[in-house]
Amino acid sequence: MNATGDAAIGRIFAQVLRPVAVGGFLALLALPGVAQTSYPAREIPARTLPVPGDVSLQMQKMIAVAPRADWEAFPQTAEEWKTLATTGATGAIQALPALRARLHVKVEATTIDGVRAYIVTPEEIPKENRNRLLVHVHGGCYVLSPGEAGTAEAILMAGFGHFKVISVDYRMPPEAYFPAALDDAMTVWKAALKMADPKKMAIFGTSAGGALTLEMILQAKKAGLPLPAAIAPGTPMSDVTKTGDSFQTNALVDNVLISTAGLCDAAAKFYANGHDLKDPLLSPVYGDFAGFPPAILTTGTRDLLLSNTVRVHRKLRQAGVEASLQVYEGQSHAQYSRDDTAPETQEAFGEIAAFFDRHLGK
Amino acid sequence: MNATGDAAIGRIFAQVLRPVAVGGFLALLALPGVAQTSYPAREIPARTLPVPGDVSLQMQKMIAVAPRADWEAFPQTAEEWKTLATTGATGAIQALPALRARLHVKVEATTIDGVRAYIVTPEEIPKENRNRLLVHVHGGCYVLSPGEAGTAEAILMAGFGHFKVISVDYRMPPEAYFPAALDDAMTVWKAALKMADPKKMAIFGTSAGGALTLEMILQAKKAGLPLPAAIAPGTPMSDVTKTGDSFQTNALVDNVLISTAGLCDAAAKFYANGHDLKDPLLSPVYGDFAGFPPAILTTGTRDLLLSNTVRVHRKLRQAGVEASLQVYEGQSHAQYSRDDTAPETQEAFGEIAAFFDRHLGK
Repeated sequence: MNATGDAAIGRIFAQVLRPVAVGGFLALLALPGVAQTSYPAREIPARTLPVPGDVSLQMQKMIAVAPRADWEAFPQTAEEWKTLATTGATGAIQALPALRARLHVKVEATTIDGVRAYIVTPEEIPKENRNRLLVHVHGGCYVLSPGEAGTAEAILMAGFGHFKVISVDYRMPPEAYFPAALDDAMTVWKAALKMADPKKMAIFGTSAGGALTLEMILQAKKAGLPLPAAIAPGTPMSDVTKTGDSFQTNALVDNVLISTAGLCDAAAKFYANGHDLKDPLLSPVYGDFAGFPPAILTTGTRDLLLSNTVRVHRKLRQAGVEASLQVYEGQSHAQYSRDDTAPETQEAFGEIAAFFDRHLGK
Repeated sequence: MNATGDAAIGRIFAQVLRPVAVGGFLALLALPGVAQTSYPAREIPARTLPVPGDVSLQMQKMIAVAPRADWEAFPQTAEEWKTLATTGATGAIQALPALRARLHVKVEATTIDGVRAYIVTPEEIPKENRNRLLVHVHGGCYVLSPGEAGTAEAILMAGFGHFKVISVDYRMPPEAYFPAALDDAMTVWKAALKMADPKKMAIFGTSAGGALTLEMILQAKKAGLPLPAAIAPGTPMSDVTKTGDSFQTNALVDNVLISTAGLCDAAAKFYANGHDLKDPLLSPVYGDFAGFPPAILTTGTRDLLLSNTVRVHRKLRQAGVEASLQVYEGQSHAQYSRDDTAPETQEAFGEIAAFFDRHLGK
């Protein structure tokens, strides 16, 4: 990169990607990323990225969405974060009755040892799943998807996998900061251990929920608690220190998270509340994965967290853990969980359900 | 994309990526790619891509290499292709004695039912591998790595996995065209069936060798021949019709294949010799994977063939086949097989060896 290049890139950026301010693009050039190496960076020219034709029509529609014009804007105060979370949740909740109806799933609010949660039950539970129980930790960058809004993925799992699910509505900032989300999830895990045999249980979640899934196992190991028979961390926020090559290669290619300069990293910092971001309870890729239960990981080729998913996969394998990686064509962050009518969604949850079926006792 | 954007992109391209001609970049903009959809393409701005710090020093060195200045140039005549293959092979062969010495592997040239091949034998074969036999089909876009140059990956597998390997030195253009490579590989497979029990055998290869591995199974199924107990198609050229989203997202990010406008696609067309590129014996992703043996697939997050690896993985899973996907951080096409001293190389071949050990009889 040189001064001439910067100015010219700024010009072309202003022309081809109008919604984003030039200042934002220059910020992207200096994107905090992987650890420094002694090798020079390379310049990758601009390109025109078509919507792939080798995915379903539903997926094409999702992939075609342009990044939000204001993707670099994020709340600056606790009140603004809360407003964002509440507004987003209100919209998300409106889609839930139809989703529950399509998937024949019932959701009941409850409290488990003081922690808010939802019991998510499919209309029909096949015999082999009657003694099985899943614990779900929702995503949303540790700040978004409060209340019922966090149950969508649990509904997909209950509906496609025909499992009973407890979805944890853990506390989030500004109500409470790190490690409140993990504490609440562990409270539910301890309670769940009294409801079912851990050999017949699994924990799953996507994004921050994928990270929390890994963090729960690290905590359970430390506390000497029984571990579940399997876990399914979906595209986990396994490293919030901005390390991971796809933070660079998929920046602005991923149309959901878009870039580490976007909202999600800011939200994770808001949750961390000054705590060391490299703590494995915030960046679980730095944890010790020895003794982890079998894990199935899910991501997409355009996912900003592709690297942070495959790095967890590799670390699990290096620790001798059975770990299965599923990567879906053309998908950005967590798009496998966005549209229950997409065949890829049914495929992703079908893979997870089959993995659980192989590893959970009956 | 609009005319203004084109002109401006051309200017900035000339400034930031000097080695490549502007005409080439405009060709990239019109990159033949995935099937058309009704959705508009998105403009992705230029970016500065650092070398990731979360991989080994050996891998950093490989990732740091700039794409060849002449990456868009490729031979125009049969004679030029032959010269390119011979020149490349001469260089590659010089590195082999040291590689064999480091990995304690012996290589002997032979002929099997008229097909040139190499017997690749590790100094020590552990008891559990004494009745096992692997068949290797080398890469090189169906045109490169003739003769001994094609044995490097077989040496890695024999050295790290302690298996005996037969490496097929199949005919390539201009000596012979499609389906000569596959015919030669099948001749060796039929001969191998007389040397060992197929339940104790596996087939593996990378790139064109990964595609040939898949094509061999399609052919063996058609011919009613016994199948091996496992296969390891590494980043297979599973679709030479330029379909696959990472042909777009990883264009110029992958520093080995670089783009579908580069040499490898031209070489595949040279081999196809006018034959329909969508024939599953050239683009095996379009084949019927029912009844395939367990498969382990390997790729990297920067691989131009990331999509064509994960698409094969998904199609295998959809056909009910046990299929394991390994994706390595930051790696471009086939970089897991380039440096035997890199821990990632040992890890990749260790994964494949462990997979074979799980699936091959003793």
